This record gives sequence, C-alpha cells and structure tokens, in this order.
Amino acid sequence: MDRLYGRNSVNEALRAGRRRIHRVLIAHGTRPFDARVPVDRVDRHQLDSLVGTHHQGVVAEVDPFPYVSVEDLIGESPLLLALDSLQDPQNFGTLLRTALAVGVDGVIIPEHRAVGITPAVSNASAGAVEHLRVARVTNLTRALSQLKSRNVWVYGLTMDAPQPFWDVDFNGGVVLVVGSEGEGLGRLVRETCDLLLSIPMRPDSIDSLNAATAGSLVLYEAFRQRSTNHS
Amino acid sequence: MDRLYGRNSVNEALRAGRRRIHRVLIAHGTRPFDARVPVDRVDRHQLDSLVGTHHQGVVAEVDPFPYVSVEDLIGESPLLLALDSLQDPQNFGTLLRTALAVGVDGVIIPEHRAVGITPAVSNASAGAVEHLRVARVTNLTRALSQLKSRNVWVYGLTMDAPQPFWDVDFNGGVVLVVGSEGEGLGRLVRETCDLLLSIPMRPDSIDSLNAATAGSLVLYEAFRQRSTNHS
Repeated sequence: MDRLYGRNSVNEALRAGRRRIHRVLIAHGTRPFDARVPVDRVDRHQLDSLVGTHHQGVVAEVDPFPYVSVEDLIGESPLLLALDSLQDPQNFGTLLRTALAVGVDGVIIPEHRAVGITPAVSNASAGAVEHLRVARVTNLTRALSQLKSRNVWVYGLTMDAPQPFWDVDFNGGVVLVVGSEGEGLGRLVRETCDLLLSIPMRPDSIDSLNAATAGSLVLYEAFRQRSTNHS
Repeated sequence: MDRLYGRNSVNEALRAGRRRIHRVLIAHGTRPFDARVPVDRVDRHQLDSLVGTHHQGVVAEVDPFPYVSVEDLIGESPLLLALDSLQDPQNFGTLLRTALAVGVDGVIIPEHRAVGITPAVSNASAGAVEHLRVARVTNLTRALSQLKSRNVWVYGLTMDAPQPFWDVDFNGGVVLVVGSEGEGLGRLVRETCDLLLSIPMRPDSIDSLNAATAGSLVLYEAFRQRSTNHS
C-alpha cells in the first residue's frame, strides 16, 4: 500500500480512478475534501508521523502505482519520455508535470538506477503522474531497441551533442531519453540513440541546466512542432 | 555576512570575484578545495550546525550579495527577467540557472513578496546567480514602467493569456515577468505589461507548470530567436 500526501496528489489519484483508494485521512481543521471514499478525521501530528510534514492535511491510503508494459505505450506515432537514472523525486515530479502538459503517450523508467513512482514523486508532480502511463523496465537499452524496431526514433539529450534541440524534427514516433544531472546518459543507452541532441547555452555561462528544466525544454519543442503541424 | 554552502555556490562566488570572501570552511575528509583565500579545516558537524546538511563539506563566509540598480541593467536591447513574488528558493535558483545559460542582462526582484538572493538561492542555482546582475526594487510596477520608458517591452507570463509564447517576437529590448506558482502576477504588474503570453498545454491535462519550468521555456524561446537571428 502507498500513502499519497498533499491535496493535488490525492485529488488527481481520485480523479484518475486508476488506483484503489482504501481510505483518506484528513487533519482536523483542514477544509473539507470532496472524496467519495471513506474519510477519517485525524490529528495533524498523526499525518506528520506517517508521511512527514508536506501533506497539507490530506493523506490517502491507496494501491501501489499501476505500471503498464512498454508494449502498452506504442500507438501511432507516439511521443514518449524515457528517464535514465533520475534520482531526485522533486526533479522527477517536475518533469512528469511537463510530460502531462504536453500529452506524452507514456513514460519509461528503469527498475534500477532510478526512483519509482513513489508518493514523493506523485506529490512533486502535483498529481500529474496519476494520469500518465508509466512502464518500469528491467533493461532500458532493450526497451529502447524494442521501440526502434517499431519505428520510434530514439533521441538522447546530452550536454555535448552538436545538434541543438530546436533544429530537430520531432514529428512521427519519438522517444526522448533524459539522463541524470550529474552523469548524463549511460554508455549503452547513448549508443542505442538514433540521434543525440543538446541544449545550447551561452559560452562561459554554466555546464548544465537542471535536469527537469532540460527535459521540459525538449518536450515543449516536440509539443510545439506537433501542435503547429496539425493546426 | 552570508554563509554560502555547497561546492558550486562557493566555487562560482570565487570565480566571479564579486563578493569579498572572508574565509572558507572545509570539512575534514572533503577533497581539497582550490581557494586563494584562507581555508580552515573543521568538523563536518560544525558545518551542519551553521547551514544545515546540504553543504557538501564546503562553506564560505562572504559579503552579502551585491545588488545593482535597474539603471545598471539597461543596455542596448537587453533581455531581462523580472520575478513577481517567487517564494520558493529551489524554483528561484533553478530559474536563475536558466537565466545565466541564456545570457540575460539582468534580473529584477521586488524587495517584498519575494525571497532575496540568499545562500539557499545561490545553492539552488548551482552558483549561477554569482555571475548574474540582480536589482532589488521596492516597487516592481515602477521599475517596469521605467523600463518601458526606455523602450524595453514588458511581457508577462500568465496561464490564461491567448497568446502562446512561441508566437511572440522576442527581439529588441524585452523584460519577461514571471509570477508565483499559486497566484501568478499581481494586478498592477499585470496591467503594466505590454503583452501577456501563456504556455499552451494539452486540454484537460493540468492547470499550470512548475514556475521555474514555465519561466525557463519562455527564456529559451527568447534565446533561440535572438541566437538564430544573429547567426
């Protein structure tokens, strides 16, 4: 069982209706909560001891996150996001929030070397991940090869690639692979990419952007191209 | 006196050379630090008690952040960033990191309703802010009017504007105004803007993006336009 916390996270899990919600716990003094599930009023300190202090007075006991398979993510010309070893729940959640805003068809994360869809990630995504399809795979390189064989182009985001992201064509089936802030993409993942792209920066400014910012910039470029082509 | 913490923050303050650095404290067992300033080796727990636990073994006692005036930021066709009530140091720092990457000519923050350039902000910006020119003003609306009178266009980022950011011309003198995540732009600030722009999102996805992500998207669109026009 997971304990989701925070109004957005719990609200979006309810709206999405994908996880069974066993019980919602609401702190005394917190404004009412529109939940069609059993609600218990409890002491705020009880919530603190269950999930830490960032719950805004709302905690929900729910089934674990419902992962899907990579095969479930492959429709016609999908836009997918893959994460290679993103460790920080805050960055992970922020990037998933952008992923939902641009309507990605799915997210792929490795079982090892990356954080799963924990309550902290759901909270950091402001509940966005409750609406996203996420596949958790044992071998990211193999999953990317599987996508390649289905005509999905694999684009890897790195700091040293010569190709600026704004010059890349994001129409058709695309999976964008984002690495961790410190290490970037793993060697095998990098070699599996059809194209490496980078985010231009002013010379002598900084080495890298925040990982969630970097991923969001590329996702929005893809969204812009795919939106303006259909309008 | 400020106590900067974290390797990037302290390193960039040293590189920038804008703040007087009184002393660098390094925890025993931390790898050597190339500082041409007095260095004291101390116990890690001493650093914890001074600045919390995110110091990576490095703390520097420095002069406060050197703010400049709005007038100092106005060159020929400047690209400026103004922040209306951004409270979260992490988001603030992340956005400043992007601001440096795109080479903004300056940042404007209000004295009230927003966090200043604290050590937490410097740390969250990975030291980027040590290289940025920042003006702290008592009245943001007045500062924006001052910029308008100098032929700088004031663009406000809101969630409900009809104009997508990717359709806006960012050449010439521009100041981008970003609000807080919860409240957006204040009324007076909003009325001072020449143009309101928004970030398109998929219908029925989410209400808003992370504030640092939103600001970063628009800064990069400005950077893209201004880079590709000169190449």
